[in-house]
Amino acid sequence: MLFITRKEHFNAAHKLYNPQWTEEKNAEVFGKCSNPNWHGHNYSLFVTVKGNINPETGFIVNLKELSTVIRTEICDKLDHKNLNLDVDFLKGVMTSTENVTIAIFNILAPKIKKMGAELHGIKLYETENNYVEYFGN
Amino acid sequence: MLFITRKEHFNAAHKLYNPQWTEEKNAEVFGKCSNPNWHGHNYSLFVTVKGNINPETGFIVNLKELSTVIRTEICDKLDHKNLNLDVDFLKGVMTSTENVTIAIFNILAPKIKKMGAELHGIKLYETENNYVEYFGN
Amino acid sequence: MLFITRKEHFNAAHKLYNPQWTEEKNAEVFGKCSNPNWHGHNYSLFVTVKGNINPETGFIVNLKELSTVIRTEICDKLDHKNLNLDVDFLKGVMTSTENVTIAIFNILAPKIKKMGAELHGIKLYETENNYVEYFGN
Amino acid sequence: MLFITRKEHFNAAHKLYNPQWTEEKNAEVFGKCSNPNWHGHNYSLFVTVKGNINPETGFIVNLKELSTVIRTEICDKLDHKNLNLDVDFLKGVMTSTENVTIAIFNILAPKIKKMGAELHGIKLYETENNYVEYFGN
Amino acid sequence: MLFITRKEHFNAAHKLYNPQWTEEKNAEVFGKCSNPNWHGHNYSLFVTVKGNINPETGFIVNLKELSTVIRTEICDKLDHKNLNLDVDFLKGVMTSTENVTIAIFNILAPKIKKMGAELHGIKLYETENNYVEYFGN
Amino acid sequence: MLFITRKEHFNAAHKLYNPQWTEEKNAEVFGKCSNPNWHGHNYSLFVTVKGNINPETGFIVNLKELSTVIRTEICDKLDHKNLNLDVDFLKGVMTSTENVTIAIFNILAPKIKKMGAELHGIKLYETENNYVEYFGN
Repeated sequence: MLFITRKEHFNAAHKLYNPQWTEEKNAEVFGKCSNPNWHGHNYSLFVTVKGNINPETGFIVNLKELSTVIRTEICDKLDHKNLNLDVDFLKGVMTSTENVTIAIFNILAPKIKKMGAELHGIKLYETENNYVEYFGN
Repeated sequence: MLFITRKEHFNAAHKLYNPQWTEEKNAEVFGKCSNPNWHGHNYSLFVTVKGNINPETGFIVNLKELSTVIRTEICDKLDHKNLNLDVDFLKGVMTSTENVTIAIFNILAPKIKKMGAELHGIKLYETENNYVEYFGN
Repeated sequence: MLFITRKEHFNAAHKLYNPQWTEEKNAEVFGKCSNPNWHGHNYSLFVTVKGNINPETGFIVNLKELSTVIRTEICDKLDHKNLNLDVDFLKGVMTSTENVTIAIFNILAPKIKKMGAELHGIKLYETENNYVEYFGN
Repeated sequence: MLFITRKEHFNAAHKLYNPQWTEEKNAEVFGKCSNPNWHGHNYSLFVTVKGNINPETGFIVNLKELSTVIRTEICDKLDHKNLNLDVDFLKGVMTSTENVTIAIFNILAPKIKKMGAELHGIKLYETENNYVEYFGN
Repeated sequence: MLFITRKEHFNAAHKLYNPQWTEEKNAEVFGKCSNPNWHGHNYSLFVTVKGNINPETGFIVNLKELSTVIRTEICDKLDHKNLNLDVDFLKGVMTSTENVTIAIFNILAPKIKKMGAELHGIKLYETENNYVEYFGN
Repeated sequence: MLFITRKEHFNAAHKLYNPQWTEEKNAEVFGKCSNPNWHGHNYSLFVTVKGNINPETGFIVNLKELSTVIRTEICDKLDHKNLNLDVDFLKGVMTSTENVTIAIFNILAPKIKKMGAELHGIKLYETENNYVEYFGN
């Protein structure tokens, strides 16, 4: 059993805001992250897949195909977008790094299964100083 | 004559959009950067100051003071903000990295002169793959 | 169950020296790390917390609070200090990256428990070429 | 139980090519990686060792010795080499990152056991956008 | 006058070898870089363009177009290639970082002139520890 | 005329302290950098050399020789040392990054002249957030 990781990127706007709270409570809990006019990040996305080596290729999974799946399913939908407004699979979700990470995992897991491997985990950097990891349970 | 550089950060939303153009022309020129719902970046800001060494301190300029000036004058006004909507000194300006870099230079130059040194240049990274430099003329 | 990691920094002096050994044995085992006049490093500290998402915030833990705890309990006590001389919780400890990592874990674990989450692990870089990880057992 | 990781480097040429396939199939599966005239990479190698702390040194393992073992057993044999042609322990192996990672693990595991510690895992970056990890089973 | 820089990548094989010298002299001067079976690198290429801002776009030059020019003219011809064997514009040239940098400059300068800007300089990293810069004269 | 840059490292202890001042004034100006028990850094040193290409080698200067000169003349004297106490060429000098940068330049300039090239500049990072550059006048 080996693990292979592919890094991709997307740049997006978002805000942290709980619509069931007052402005004051949002400001108190989320601070400047609740700016109603949005802010944004260069996100770095690490997708780790596990599996056995195909002896004919030496690969767990073809990295070019893996990259295409991540770009098609995730980056094309998040890059240069507003995470709160523009993304079907984040509708009604607080766009914390935690929730975005889980959503990405849930989309990619079945796609990678179809490639004959298994999604091990997602690691999402919001800035170079903080990241979230999710392994599916 | 020496040069000292301080790196600071801000995370902001913006879009590239020329209000005198049609939607189509904006989309054609700016592509996904013109998304009306905004996108965003983790900006890295490098401020380079030149001067001679003060023999009592060994410093061109006190880095802690330099950092405070950059944070007060620039980062506090841009961090977790929308560059198109929230920033007095960018009102009516296309928020390309080029224009943001010039605006930052013009604000910091007189502040650094007051510290007894000279602003040499500003280097602003929008992503790890592109940055703009401006040296004041 | 998710994992969130926050990166912080401290710059410190130290030496590796076993007082029960001769100078020669210290030099032989620790090499230039045993320089009696000290040397130093820019340490990078990664603190990983695990927990479930609070549905009201989308957070495992509020990163700003996590950062404050790490800075107050660790960085303020180690930054611009001599690890061998200035730090209460390292008194009598060989200041190898291994021992510093364990000490940091043991201080932060109960503080993070009070925040309603669990400290998963500490990763401490002494240089960009070596780091130690500790997961508490 | 702690984990210590040492990073080393090697720069090498290779190609991905299955000799039992036609040129066409190689090109189809491996794309530009199958260029018969080779291409190459700056590989980054992370070796993670686990063990308990020796109370006399504060070390799991002496990093200088660990570095020497990695350089002698691995980097000296791969650096500025052709992975397909010049390396005894890769003869007849597809030089995918996956297979190189396993080969490195299998060489280092007994060497590190002799140092009184245990090889936990190997992480090998082929580019900054992809890496493989192997933990021995 | 501003400067904008775009970073691109290519991974290639090469060797340093002077065909007018003996094997011994090549080995003496170039060391392991003269391995007849090649070695390789992940090259990072920084292209810096200077010009004035187009007030309609806020751009010196459209970065997407700049990226396309660099990829079409340079990266597509060098990526996953052997610099000594596969590249028209390096035929008969020692493939030192110095010579590759100059060759890239000379190809890009007229292309960027056609975009209405001026090529200021090329910075080419062979490894993270060494790079060459050329400004055209 | 081209420029080639080599990156090297050293890890050292130091403090900022003006012996002609009171403790209070030192603390006021230098803050935690004046800790009498020292602190330290992982310094990154970039040495840029300019010259013309030797057509027989394709080199401005042999990088291996350049690296050896930097290590022998600078890194061996600063690495795992106390900059205030252990370094002949820094005796009586405030060990600010500015002063260390100038001292390194002045040592390396004549050595690089002997190699048939010219020292263009020194860039010294004290942390990843600040660096000094000196070009010799």
